[in-house]
Amino acid sequence: MIIVMSPTATQKEIEHVIARVTGAGLKVHLSEGKIRTIIGLIGEKKMMAQLPLEALAGVEKTISVTAGYKLVSSEFKNEDTVIDIGGVLVGAQNLVIMAGPCAVESRAQLLESARIVKEAGAQFLRGGAYKPRTSPYSFQGLEEKGLEMLAEARAVTGLKVVTEVVDIQSVSVVSAYADVLQIGARNMQNFQLLKAVGKSGMPVLLKRGIAATINEWLHAAEYIMSEGNYNVMFCERGIRTFEDYTRNTLDLSAVAALKNISHLPVIVDPSHGTGLWKLVRPMAKAAIAGGADGLMIEVHPNPAEALSDGNQSLTPENFHMLMNEVGTVASAVGRRMA
Amino acid sequence: MIIVMSPTATQKEIEHVIARVTGAGLKVHLSEGKIRTIIGLIGEKKMMAQLPLEALAGVEKTISVTAGYKLVSSEFKNEDTVIDIGGVLVGAQNLVIMAGPCAVESRAQLLESARIVKEAGAQFLRGGAYKPRTSPYSFQGLEEKGLEMLAEARAVTGLKVVTEVVDIQSVSVVSAYADVLQIGARNMQNFQLLKAVGKSGMPVLLKRGIAATINEWLHAAEYIMSEGNYNVMFCERGIRTFEDYTRNTLDLSAVAALKNISHLPVIVDPSHGTGLWKLVRPMAKAAIAGGADGLMIEVHPNPAEALSDGNQSLTPENFHMLMNEVGTVASAVGRRMA
Amino acid sequence: MIIVMSPTATQKEIEHVIARVTGAGLKVHLSEGKIRTIIGLIGEKKMMAQLPLEALAGVEKTISVTAGYKLVSSEFKNEDTVIDIGGVLVGAQNLVIMAGPCAVESRAQLLESARIVKEAGAQFLRGGAYKPRTSPYSFQGLEEKGLEMLAEARAVTGLKVVTEVVDIQSVSVVSAYADVLQIGARNMQNFQLLKAVGKSGMPVLLKRGIAATINEWLHAAEYIMSEGNYNVMFCERGIRTFEDYTRNTLDLSAVAALKNISHLPVIVDPSHGTGLWKLVRPMAKAAIAGGADGLMIEVHPNPAEALSDGNQSLTPENFHMLMNEVGTVASAVGRRMA
Amino acid sequence: MIIVMSPTATQKEIEHVIARVTGAGLKVHLSEGKIRTIIGLIGEKKMMAQLPLEALAGVEKTISVTAGYKLVSSEFKNEDTVIDIGGVLVGAQNLVIMAGPCAVESRAQLLESARIVKEAGAQFLRGGAYKPRTSPYSFQGLEEKGLEMLAEARAVTGLKVVTEVVDIQSVSVVSAYADVLQIGARNMQNFQLLKAVGKSGMPVLLKRGIAATINEWLHAAEYIMSEGNYNVMFCERGIRTFEDYTRNTLDLSAVAALKNISHLPVIVDPSHGTGLWKLVRPMAKAAIAGGADGLMIEVHPNPAEALSDGNQSLTPENFHMLMNEVGTVASAVGRRMA
Repeated sequence: MIIVMSPTATQKEIEHVIARVTGAGLKVHLSEGKIRTIIGLIGEKKMMAQLPLEALAGVEKTISVTAGYKLVSSEFKNEDTVIDIGGVLVGAQNLVIMAGPCAVESRAQLLESARIVKEAGAQFLRGGAYKPRTSPYSFQGLEEKGLEMLAEARAVTGLKVVTEVVDIQSVSVVSAYADVLQIGARNMQNFQLLKAVGKSGMPVLLKRGIAATINEWLHAAEYIMSEGNYNVMFCERGIRTFEDYTRNTLDLSAVAALKNISHLPVIVDPSHGTGLWKLVRPMAKAAIAGGADGLMIEVHPNPAEALSDGNQSLTPENFHMLMNEVGTVASAVGRRMA
Repeated sequence: MIIVMSPTATQKEIEHVIARVTGAGLKVHLSEGKIRTIIGLIGEKKMMAQLPLEALAGVEKTISVTAGYKLVSSEFKNEDTVIDIGGVLVGAQNLVIMAGPCAVESRAQLLESARIVKEAGAQFLRGGAYKPRTSPYSFQGLEEKGLEMLAEARAVTGLKVVTEVVDIQSVSVVSAYADVLQIGARNMQNFQLLKAVGKSGMPVLLKRGIAATINEWLHAAEYIMSEGNYNVMFCERGIRTFEDYTRNTLDLSAVAALKNISHLPVIVDPSHGTGLWKLVRPMAKAAIAGGADGLMIEVHPNPAEALSDGNQSLTPENFHMLMNEVGTVASAVGRRMA
Repeated sequence: MIIVMSPTATQKEIEHVIARVTGAGLKVHLSEGKIRTIIGLIGEKKMMAQLPLEALAGVEKTISVTAGYKLVSSEFKNEDTVIDIGGVLVGAQNLVIMAGPCAVESRAQLLESARIVKEAGAQFLRGGAYKPRTSPYSFQGLEEKGLEMLAEARAVTGLKVVTEVVDIQSVSVVSAYADVLQIGARNMQNFQLLKAVGKSGMPVLLKRGIAATINEWLHAAEYIMSEGNYNVMFCERGIRTFEDYTRNTLDLSAVAALKNISHLPVIVDPSHGTGLWKLVRPMAKAAIAGGADGLMIEVHPNPAEALSDGNQSLTPENFHMLMNEVGTVASAVGRRMA
Repeated sequence: MIIVMSPTATQKEIEHVIARVTGAGLKVHLSEGKIRTIIGLIGEKKMMAQLPLEALAGVEKTISVTAGYKLVSSEFKNEDTVIDIGGVLVGAQNLVIMAGPCAVESRAQLLESARIVKEAGAQFLRGGAYKPRTSPYSFQGLEEKGLEMLAEARAVTGLKVVTEVVDIQSVSVVSAYADVLQIGARNMQNFQLLKAVGKSGMPVLLKRGIAATINEWLHAAEYIMSEGNYNVMFCERGIRTFEDYTRNTLDLSAVAALKNISHLPVIVDPSHGTGLWKLVRPMAKAAIAGGADGLMIEVHPNPAEALSDGNQSLTPENFHMLMNEVGTVASAVGRRMA
């Protein structure tokens, strides 16, 4: 951390700042310019984080030089993480495809969806049993009954199950049915929940918060990993910007950024990322060409009958086309469809 | 809701859309322009929300005409809500001032803070016992011990206590010690938590999510009210924008907007809203002049020693100045300091 | 356009609104719901745009049903536009690559850059002779001398030249030297300049404004086209969001969106779009996989010596790698490197 | 400026960076931490700005310590600037009120507007003769005829005239009629225009760009001042965010920020800032309470007949109320209506 003193800071103020930080066990590196004095701090990041330095007299601002995370960083582990989920590898050469309806609506709808996505080549079935909805009057999910249907679909098709967990109470019940716990965008900074899924030891798909910086996202993963659970996947699903043609702005540069900063796998969800089914196929291809390790795609046997997000769901036909097209792009960047 | 058909929609597609919505029990109002057909829907909003109309062939887009909330709306209740919290009225002519440290750090710090803010004229003591923090390595709060200290400070000073609740588990323990449950920005769409505080019957201070639209915020309040708890206050605390000089962009126009749309009281937190103590006083005055019912202000006996957010906390001297200045502005807009 | 009347609107207010719009020559379509009356307008868009309907008593809001542009729309021209620039086709099966330094710095630097990008397979040389810079104290470009160097580089290599025009005065001088006029992000809504390049008849590369919606971007192109100049290319170069790891957020979904809405070609600039040379190659591949018709890439013989944007420029070696990788991805989506 | 080297930077890379910056005439201050080496640069900011340091091998990032502007800064001039515009002082104790229609529509409309705002106490008449509009099909202004009407209204009422200049060509004609040149939001980074109004010597009202940071805004003012024209006023008019209830998000904290950073006066435009006439009065009061030196308000004799922005214009009655209310708030913060 660097402390930039104000041009009007007095010698006494500078000395007080130095006394304060050395008193906290940190070392100091002083640089006196013509206009300003700059004080570099050397020592434990954690200690620096707890000093309210900008409140000291004469301090203009402080600047962080290093990141606040550690376990997620490729400086800490310089080899890409591959997560083995019952034999399906995430982060290896083969892409992983997670597909299915937004919400579990009925046994018939889910089994039909599972059959379709399995046949098209997906390895994971997605489907929400607990649905966070903006309005209290919208469909909120089938809850444990939905989990049972997901487990049945897995038994029938062999697909792995990824589904959202929305509170601490349901971590154990969702863990009993699912292969991967999904943390939704609205819960990316629900730190109690992050700690709970960290303790569960289950593989976690961590969606990016709708207004989360990459830096905050990395810290959210650090919460999970600091509980000893290293099986974390990022999922880019679009951020909120001023643009309103798309539901969100899918930030594919975040994929390339994460690949530089971290060793963890990155999945892309172009369905939520765009909110428009016509944009899902081109963005799925773009995601893979840009380095993503897999995709999460909403597919519905009949989008026009869906209870949730039908506008962004692909028909089975469109999903088949997507799988073929993505497979071709995958080969062009040294990846493979399983 | 209005369905805008594509200019290339066929007669058959139009008929299919009509059949679909009338089949769901809605009435239809047809308007055939030279270029496009437009279909108006009349009936239950809830029913419309569950139809994935944009997935139907020939549909270009759908447009919501009416809001999805009800209980929060001034159309539903056209008289401003005044909440009585142990004799302190929120939303009445008198302003309410909630002040104190960001986090409860120690008994001494809290009692000293309480004494200071009480003396300066505040009615509520704020202070976090459970602290959501971006990094798992930052100070996370004193938890129940912090709540005990808050209760002691109340006993000594007579101040009411407002403090954050971060998960469902702690709703009952926080309710046992606090007068108002605060929902933090990161939890504004933690719907399980909203339902839980709704069921608790406790007065709730609902902070705006960092990237929440006013519309989503109103729906979040609707979650609480739809559980039968009508004691909800909004708290504007800044939104995330591209501007990085301030920590957040304090959106005071949201105050005026809420006063038009809703009957619930609105509090403003210029400390988190700006992140810079030098901006707190001017923005506090602006908030009151713009129609806010009260303020939430971070005050610390010694900001330079604070464990959290010291950079935005006021010293006791600055808080005194703020109270005097705000009092003068309050008179200018027909309000009063208590 | 649709007028949504307030639930409290009186019959008289409704009649006044109707009188006002029919008085302006528009037809009206009335829909009376249980709670609200909705008035649909039929007629000339232009006329509607000039009525301040929301200021009429009883009006809650107005909703636009159709877009305000025409010539840019694929409803107007349902066949993709291919622009022939001295024999190089933009928008056809072959991708176009525009590459070169951010700024023209010297004759030697530019000729060396031109040689490098030509050899690697580019068709266009980019390079700024007029440079809009945030600070008045930064390097502002070589102006006409820079244009002469660009023309010399074209004579030597056969590359076409694309360069920015920053004001009306220089449209004619830039047109004398360049093959394509670039409108920079800061000038996307400099309407006088848009009209001037429209009148010039020159091919125009229209960069997206840093906070421009897709809708505003389409209207900016409409300004150029409404002067009779149909040779317009869009260039996505990143938008401003809260994310600060990247310089901008490259919005690749805008490419897919434009391909749905418009018939004009779309180029992507991942150099400005990310601001980080390490992210340029993955995002270039993503752009092509997502449907872009070409790329604009910053290449510098020696980025560490560049006077502008060295941090996002590729070395010759990296640009060669990009060209190879993009070529492979192009084949996977039915496109070709020239 | 500070250069943060990567943890994996070699000794040779560090030496190369040092050689590069010392070769450019800068001094270096070295700080070797356990993990990283940090290099502080001392010398001319301008020189640093031209070095593409992040492109050098081993460099992780660079951090600016000081601002790139000078003349606008209160470090450069620590006394508030008061601009004398024909006897009306801007930035002094008296507030200035600029009011009038969005666009000059006709002689009758303008003279009537001028009379109304004069009578209510305004000192400036606003009104656009050149109108930048998103769509080429919207009303574009009366141009020089509009300027003549503004001058006539001045002759009749004694009001000063503030009106927008949209390109270099019209700087001289607008200067011939107006007292203050307004730079609109879309032109805040039209650097050619900034230089031209700088050279004109006329007082300039510099509106904030719709997505401009405070830092960029300060630099835009620096462009004008670096031409020797020190008569610059800022005008906050809302920024673009995700919120869509309001047309823009009026950033009142920018007023307080500018008052800390700069010595120049700050005006607030709540009409464009909110886009909703119902929010104009509360936000006008908030602006003054927060420290603004004046207001720019859209007033129309009959908003329902306006050709532009009628939805955000005040009626004469509402403007009178605003003036009274703002006068009361002004007194509460030590200011006065003239």
